[in-house]
Amino acid sequence: MVYELYYWPSIQGRGEFVRLALEEAGCDYVDVARNPAMGVRALLALLSDESLARPPFAPPFLRADGIIIAQTASILDYLGGRHELAPRDEAARRWTLQLQLTITDLLVEVHDTHHPIAGSLYYEDQQPEAVRRSADFVKNRLPKFLDYFERVLRLNAERPHLVGERLTYVDLSLFQVIAGARYAFPRTLARLAPRCPRVLALHEAVAARPRIAAYLASARRLPFSEQDLFRRYVELDPP
Amino acid sequence: MVYELYYWPSIQGRGEFVRLALEEAGCDYVDVARNPAMGVRALLALLSDESLARPPFAPPFLRADGIIIAQTASILDYLGGRHELAPRDEAARRWTLQLQLTITDLLVEVHDTHHPIAGSLYYEDQQPEAVRRSADFVKNRLPKFLDYFERVLRLNAERPHLVGERLTYVDLSLFQVIAGARYAFPRTLARLAPRCPRVLALHEAVAARPRIAAYLASARRLPFSEQDLFRRYVELDPP
Repeated sequence: MVYELYYWPSIQGRGEFVRLALEEAGCDYVDVARNPAMGVRALLALLSDESLARPPFAPPFLRADGIIIAQTASILDYLGGRHELAPRDEAARRWTLQLQLTITDLLVEVHDTHHPIAGSLYYEDQQPEAVRRSADFVKNRLPKFLDYFERVLRLNAERPHLVGERLTYVDLSLFQVIAGARYAFPRTLARLAPRCPRVLALHEAVAARPRIAAYLASARRLPFSEQDLFRRYVELDPP
Repeated sequence: MVYELYYWPSIQGRGEFVRLALEEAGCDYVDVARNPAMGVRALLALLSDESLARPPFAPPFLRADGIIIAQTASILDYLGGRHELAPRDEAARRWTLQLQLTITDLLVEVHDTHHPIAGSLYYEDQQPEAVRRSADFVKNRLPKFLDYFERVLRLNAERPHLVGERLTYVDLSLFQVIAGARYAFPRTLARLAPRCPRVLALHEAVAARPRIAAYLASARRLPFSEQDLFRRYVELDPP
């Protein structure tokens, strides 16, 4: 089966969390809006398709088995169950989802560091507010999230993964959080590094996995940019 | 079995979405932090309990069957599966979760109308930013979400529920969204009412369900307030 991923073609964004799972699982997939024959037109057409019984609210969404699944965490739970990227045990699987939803919460806060007023406005139109919001984010919020994931890794009996004995999709997602935070908040992350060694080790271990390493080195991995979820604005990452 | 709900004792907040499901299902539950013998101490103790193998990041969380489940949408998916508040069919159940996660996204935006800069600051310390953010929320974001849920109701073959032929937990949640929006943004909601008749009819139908009506009339239903997720500040609800 060929999966169809619908996401914006020029950014990593939330779609990247799905791409990483598809890549690690070795899935056959089409990144629809980046496919020259389909393009962003195909994404917009599906978003406004009045014939869909279960329309998604926003990208990313995945078409598989004749259904469309939206919401990153739910897409990952679905893929995880089919491709051994989630535990089989029900309670462990729900715990994995819970960790992913915690990452979802963090990503909203990351986005709002540069867009605290409105997604429909340019960064430049909300820069003073962004500076204020980021100051709280790097001082209070990002450390709280990283401390939490460090604690979860510590609790997992010193295994190098967040859940159980094997890699799950949430390990891939935490890798991406660190990759993004390193890009967007390099000074903050350098300051916080000593308190989250397990998180950083997990990041390295995921980056070294053969399929992930091949993906990161390929043209399929889009570069970070200032149109994306993680953005590097020096004024938002104070010394 | 007695469920234990852990949530802040003086607000509806995100915990209210869980309370509504527990009430509609007729579950036996303890609202831990509101229980005089337990109190908010018990909630804080659990949050900082270093012996937990799977600690929650934040309230609400539910203790059941010896496990602790956090993240509102996941709690509801869990309860829905056990108490006939979610479809049995797997794709329909995932669709219900997807709708709930869309409500989760909306709730973050509701919160950020009054706290666009930092949850750790008072409203008064971020009021100008809140006015700016709310202007976008009431003009663009809330209408977009309400249009979406109106569309989903229309697509469900003119049934009065979002999913399938029966009430699910996401119907209860959409009821609460409207209750909150009526409190916090009465002028905006009055303006938007003509475009979402099905959403408002669902709200009325849920309010009239015997167990929900009894709950809303009881002391268990906390009043709205300006410490809560939905807050009435006249300057955030422009005419």
